[in-house]
Amino acid sequence: MSLIVQKFGGSSVADAESIKRVARRIVEAREAGNDVVVVVSAMGDTTDELVDLANEVSSVPAPREMDMLLTAGERISMALVAMAVRSLGHDARSFTGSQAGMITDDQHGSARIVDVTPGRLKDAVSEGAIVIVAGFQGFNKDTGDITTLGRGGSDTSAVALAAALEADVCEIYTDVDGVFTADPRVVPLASKIHRITSEEMLELAANGAKVLNIRATEYARRHGVTLHVRSSFTHDEGTIVYNPTEGQQVEEPIITGVAGDLSEAKITVVGVPDVPGKAAQIFTIVANADINIDMIVQNVSHKGESKTDISFTLPKSEGERALDALRASAADIGFAELSYDDQIGKLSVVGAGMRTNSGVSAQLFTALFEAGVNIDMISTSEIRISVILRADQLNDAMRRIHSAFGLDSDIEAVVHAGTGR
Amino acid sequence: MSLIVQKFGGSSVADAESIKRVARRIVEAREAGNDVVVVVSAMGDTTDELVDLANEVSSVPAPREMDMLLTAGERISMALVAMAVRSLGHDARSFTGSQAGMITDDQHGSARIVDVTPGRLKDAVSEGAIVIVAGFQGFNKDTGDITTLGRGGSDTSAVALAAALEADVCEIYTDVDGVFTADPRVVPLASKIHRITSEEMLELAANGAKVLNIRATEYARRHGVTLHVRSSFTHDEGTIVYNPTEGQQVEEPIITGVAGDLSEAKITVVGVPDVPGKAAQIFTIVANADINIDMIVQNVSHKGESKTDISFTLPKSEGERALDALRASAADIGFAELSYDDQIGKLSVVGAGMRTNSGVSAQLFTALFEAGVNIDMISTSEIRISVILRADQLNDAMRRIHSAFGLDSDIEAVVHAGTGR
Repeated sequence: MSLIVQKFGGSSVADAESIKRVARRIVEAREAGNDVVVVVSAMGDTTDELVDLANEVSSVPAPREMDMLLTAGERISMALVAMAVRSLGHDARSFTGSQAGMITDDQHGSARIVDVTPGRLKDAVSEGAIVIVAGFQGFNKDTGDITTLGRGGSDTSAVALAAALEADVCEIYTDVDGVFTADPRVVPLASKIHRITSEEMLELAANGAKVLNIRATEYARRHGVTLHVRSSFTHDEGTIVYNPTEGQQVEEPIITGVAGDLSEAKITVVGVPDVPGKAAQIFTIVANADINIDMIVQNVSHKGESKTDISFTLPKSEGERALDALRASAADIGFAELSYDDQIGKLSVVGAGMRTNSGVSAQLFTALFEAGVNIDMISTSEIRISVILRADQLNDAMRRIHSAFGLDSDIEAVVHAGTGR
Repeated sequence: MSLIVQKFGGSSVADAESIKRVARRIVEAREAGNDVVVVVSAMGDTTDELVDLANEVSSVPAPREMDMLLTAGERISMALVAMAVRSLGHDARSFTGSQAGMITDDQHGSARIVDVTPGRLKDAVSEGAIVIVAGFQGFNKDTGDITTLGRGGSDTSAVALAAALEADVCEIYTDVDGVFTADPRVVPLASKIHRITSEEMLELAANGAKVLNIRATEYARRHGVTLHVRSSFTHDEGTIVYNPTEGQQVEEPIITGVAGDLSEAKITVVGVPDVPGKAAQIFTIVANADINIDMIVQNVSHKGESKTDISFTLPKSEGERALDALRASAADIGFAELSYDDQIGKLSVVGAGMRTNSGVSAQLFTALFEAGVNIDMISTSEIRISVILRADQLNDAMRRIHSAFGLDSDIEAVVHAGTGR
């Protein structure tokens, strides 16, 4: 008998009909002979509605109380799912994050899981019950306070439970058929990836692929959890995200997928004195403002010049704060000016096969050159190459690169709308 | 410094505006120099909406899951109230029933409080915080499951917390100005009672007065909690429900109030063999069906007859079940027929002064006779006389009795609509 963890997002439990459909899905897995633990998000727009209410009663809602408020959302959906499963003739019991032993730190609104002690869940499973757990939430053991994991937290809850329960697989139900070689809304000929390593998945997720939450993917990789990303609307196999064991011979395509990201901006610090320690100074200032930097380029200073330019990319949402922090230290750093560009796009190609295949960069740059796309910045990891280009060229470039690397499918992908939490 | 427990019902926290109003009210009590612990119900119709959802996903929702579902309601309102209080510049923290140490038995949907261990609340209060607690909910220590106390449970939560925290007073905020000498919707000249003993309050509540929950009143009496029933719309003093100490000389009017109740029906078991043990047999059958009986009358059998009639009243909602139980035992009991009358009304006069004043019954029966009202059944306690009469005569009889006992006020009472949970 296998133990399966299933995670259903907000759009899968948006109303009574959807909840009944999810319940049938859960019961199918049970009747196929599995132990089943289910993680659910709040129904549809519940979280947004609760946030609106909070903003009506307080201009700056207290984070502790915000978490108390928002966790009501999963409480509702999990109880309804449990009822619906029971009405199909199976024992089902719902558990809050704290009842499920989801122990976190005390960062309200973006808590990190520090331990999972699912004793009550194990007892319920061993008594034959289907277990329904609230995603997105946990509690801090020191204060006894309820916490939430932040957006996408339900995926992380599911993976963390799968790890703690040593589940055979963690099924992430979504409104798309799996992970695609590119976003099908941008690249119509994108095809479903059947198997992908968690390392590749992490690179795709970190570089703009929305289908799986980054933290959840990271957690799955670190704890060796196998994910199955699949549609709650069909019974088709989705995408298996697996962790190759040490020394396992993996037959991998050179390029697994292409990701695009329009959420970043670029800051260039112009005319920085070309003396040792200046880059460190700049990035210390930015880091102290708690801003995450992605790519960095320092131009080689021309012969005889004593000034250089340093560029970096960061989330657009943090652009203003970074500029403010740098301006406040203008005299210290001694730069000439700051330029800000939020019309950039990032294109990434990801593939574990890159490790053993040279020439991927050359092939990428050639294809972009032929498409008339200028490359502004480049960064690479062992299994990824990313380039910064103009935002308005991103989608076209993605289609061309997807094609150039032989990823195009014969048929267009069907695109569904909406995503859950 | 006093410790005040304040309870606000669902209509007092129905929307963002109401919640902000309640927050100001709480802060006033705090700024007057008191420690404040607040108990809130779910917002407005939340509970009904959640019940509807449950019925959509399951024809017979599991009680454990129903409690999990419904307790989301107070979680929302308490977090919002805490946020609203904080935005007025005071520390405020919300606690669920289980965080507040509200330990109950395992009767989901109508759990009884077995202990209250409010250690976390005491800590928060001693740290200067205003504490906001979810009413209506608790948890079972053996199973770790969440429970609810049933309708009116938030009043009971407030009283139980007031007892455990040794609060100076438990303020029950409602949409009326206090407890009246009669329901002002029926008796326009009813006047607000300034002080009433918990014993009298209990008799009024048990006999049709809706303003205070019976269980909460009983709890307050048993644990010596002083209640203050008052309006959340005005700052007027409401009604103090107090517990006279042993030997305390209480200056009481003979009659404190008049209550009417249209929720009962009467069953008459006709032609019961007039032999010892028959009444016991009948009421054992009814009790085994878990039905609460109110008044009982056994007619004196006429000379030479060997049959008698036994009548009793019970909640209309349990009428069918009682009839079924009796029919099933018809042969055993040996009665001739059952008659069912759901067009009865119960009028009660309550007053601690009855103990030391004779003639109240005579005065009541005379007034009813003069009003042309026939009395069907009579029952009395030390401080109450109740009579069963025709339902369509109840309201008029209440007005006449109210007047006959000198309770009429000079001005008509203002009537508000709606009640909270």
